[in-house]
Formats: sequence, structure tokens, C-alpha cells
Amino acid sequence: MTPGKGLFISFEGIDGSGKSTQARLLAETLRGEGHEVVLTREPGGSPGAEEIRRLVLEGDADRWSPETELLLFTAARRDHLERTIRPALARGALVICDRYVDSTRVYQGVTRGDLRAAVDALHALMIGQDPDLTLLIDIDPAEGLARARARAGGEQRFEDMGLAMQARMRDAFLDLAAAAPDRFRRIEGAGGTADVAGRVRAALS
Amino acid sequence: MTPGKGLFISFEGIDGSGKSTQARLLAETLRGEGHEVVLTREPGGSPGAEEIRRLVLEGDADRWSPETELLLFTAARRDHLERTIRPALARGALVICDRYVDSTRVYQGVTRGDLRAAVDALHALMIGQDPDLTLLIDIDPAEGLARARARAGGEQRFEDMGLAMQARMRDAFLDLAAAAPDRFRRIEGAGGTADVAGRVRAALS
Repeated sequence: MTPGKGLFISFEGIDGSGKSTQARLLAETLRGEGHEVVLTREPGGSPGAEEIRRLVLEGDADRWSPETELLLFTAARRDHLERTIRPALARGALVICDRYVDSTRVYQGVTRGDLRAAVDALHALMIGQDPDLTLLIDIDPAEGLARARARAGGEQRFEDMGLAMQARMRDAFLDLAAAAPDRFRRIEGAGGTADVAGRVRAALS
Repeated sequence: MTPGKGLFISFEGIDGSGKSTQARLLAETLRGEGHEVVLTREPGGSPGAEEIRRLVLEGDADRWSPETELLLFTAARRDHLERTIRPALARGALVICDRYVDSTRVYQGVTRGDLRAAVDALHALMIGQDPDLTLLIDIDPAEGLARARARAGGEQRFEDMGLAMQARMRDAFLDLAAAAPDRFRRIEGAGGTADVAGRVRAALS
């Protein structure tokens, strides 16, 4: 990390991988080292994007088609990029983002494979900005599912999703990482939180 | 018009051209002839699209960037297409839509020329459906502006826009019509409402 130059880091991984915890811990560590850090997340991350997020997530599950939802989330990402990420990078801050375009790629690839190419086309056309570094917190799908279920207190969405879906999501993240080795670092997500945090910090050196 | 097969007709033109009045009159005429007609408009036209419209149009003028706004309006159009236009066409109805993608093309072309290609790319990628017939109600820009100002009671947006902008919008609509002569019909918009309505009905024969 060069002082005075911003850096855009995204965290990715399946539900229960610990990526949100690790994003927060990395932000705290880097602030302790004297950096300005902007910790943000998707979907959302700016006032306008949070409003779009609410519009998408409230109401019935079939309220929006997958195509409309993809357009709304791309609009939210554009707002997040313009209002939060780019201004922070321009003043030299470190931006740590919990989920970004790779989550969209994985989710659409697994649930609606015919929309997978549209994700990339929309990203190229209307977003353009990739992270400088993407940290993939990789965990065994069964362990991730167990953690997500424990946290959600048996929330139905995780029961519905199941292990097979978690495994397909993990494979899709690993495929993305293999296709963009300069941008991705795979972080072993098993073990204690502090151990994983140490691996995350080391990946930035 | 073949009975039992839907037809998708859009009305386009500058503010004050009379297109909304003509869309309504054509809907009434065709209903009187025994057709099922769905009269709709953009932005909006379905419950979800109307919610997106409100999200875009409320608040400060610079609340959304042109790029984010374009994505939101494309999301609204996708919802309108899926929930209103396609179901109506599938049951053999005539769909009459006050503004559609050509208004987006003209507006972006005149205000943000660098986004003009993105409009077409987004349309090809996420919308796909063109009208069967587009009726361009063409009027002298000065007359259109006078009508729009009279209707709006001196609303500031028309004062700001001015004659030069109206003239550029008209030229842009005529360019679109020239580029797609099979889809467009230019309707002379000068004269009385009933005269123009007669020309509109004749254009469908």
C-alpha cells in the first residue's frame, strides 16, 4: 500500500464464510496502522443504493423478475461506486467492501445461468471499476452452512438453500479466482477468527 | 391488425406535441371498434415501474447521476414489459404506450451524448422488445413549447429548456424515424386535435 494512493479491496465468499467479520477486523487493523479506511458493503453502501436495496428486498419474493432485480442492483452499484467508493479512493483512503460484483456473478451463475453473461456485459458497460484486490474467504460448504444456520436461528432461506447450493456457490467463487489470479487471493477460512485475520493481513503485504 | 394477435404501438414526440392526447384518443377509437386496448405510459406503466419512477423523480435533481438514472429507468422498462406489455400482447390486446425507448434515446442523445450508445446496448441486452409501430407526432418546436408552457402554467422546467432544446429533440426524433422507416410513421401534429386523430387512425390501416 502506497501512502496517499487509494486501494479498493473486496471480500467475497459463501454465507457463513466469515467474510463480513474479516472485513471489519481488517478495517480495524488498518485504522490502527494509521490508514483512513472506508468499510462498506453491497447491496447498498450509499444512501441511494440503500434505498434501491430496500426497494428490491421488501415485498414478495417474486415481486421483481431476476432481470429487473439485476438492473436494480447494477443501479445501486453505480450509485455506491460514484458516491462512496470513488470519492474515498480519490482522497487516498482504503476501501473495504463486503461483497461486490463477484457475488453477483456467482449468484446469477448458480441460480440463473442464462443471465451470467449479462452480469459481465452490464459491469463492462455501466460500472467499469474492479477492485484492486479481492479476498476470497474460502470455507468448507458444510461448515459455512452450519455457521449461517446458527447465526440465522434457523432462518428459512438457509434451510431452503441447502448444502448442494452452498457447494455450487463455493465452486463458482473458486472458478472466478482461478480466472483472475492477479486480482484474487484465496484465504483459508477454517479455524479461529484471529488465525484467519492474520492470514488476511498477510495477504496484503 | 390481425384479430387475436397483439400489436404494440408507441407514441413519441416532443413535449407539447399532443402525443398523450392522441394516444388516449386512439385507445378510445380502437375500443369503440371492439378491440381490447391497454393504454399505458413510461416511465411507469406497472406497479413496480411506478415505484421506480417515484424513486427517480423524488428528491433533489442531482440525487442520481445520469448513469444510475438510466439503469433505474431500464429496470422500470423491464418490469413494465414483463408485467403489463407482454401479458397484454400474449392475450391478443393492442398495447398503446405513451413514450418508450425512443424517448430515452432522444433524451440521452441531447443531454448526455456519451450515454447514447449505452441506451442501445442496455436495450439490446435487457429489454429486447421494440414496438411493432411507432407514431411520431411531429410538431414545430415553437408551437410545442408554447403548448407545453401553457399547460404547465409557466413551470420552470420548460422555461429552462427553451426552444433550442426542443428543436434538438425534434431533430433527434426525426433522425430515429429516418433510421427505422419500417417501424416509424411520422404524423403531422399541427392543426386541431380531431384532424391529428384522423391522421393517426389512418396510419394504422
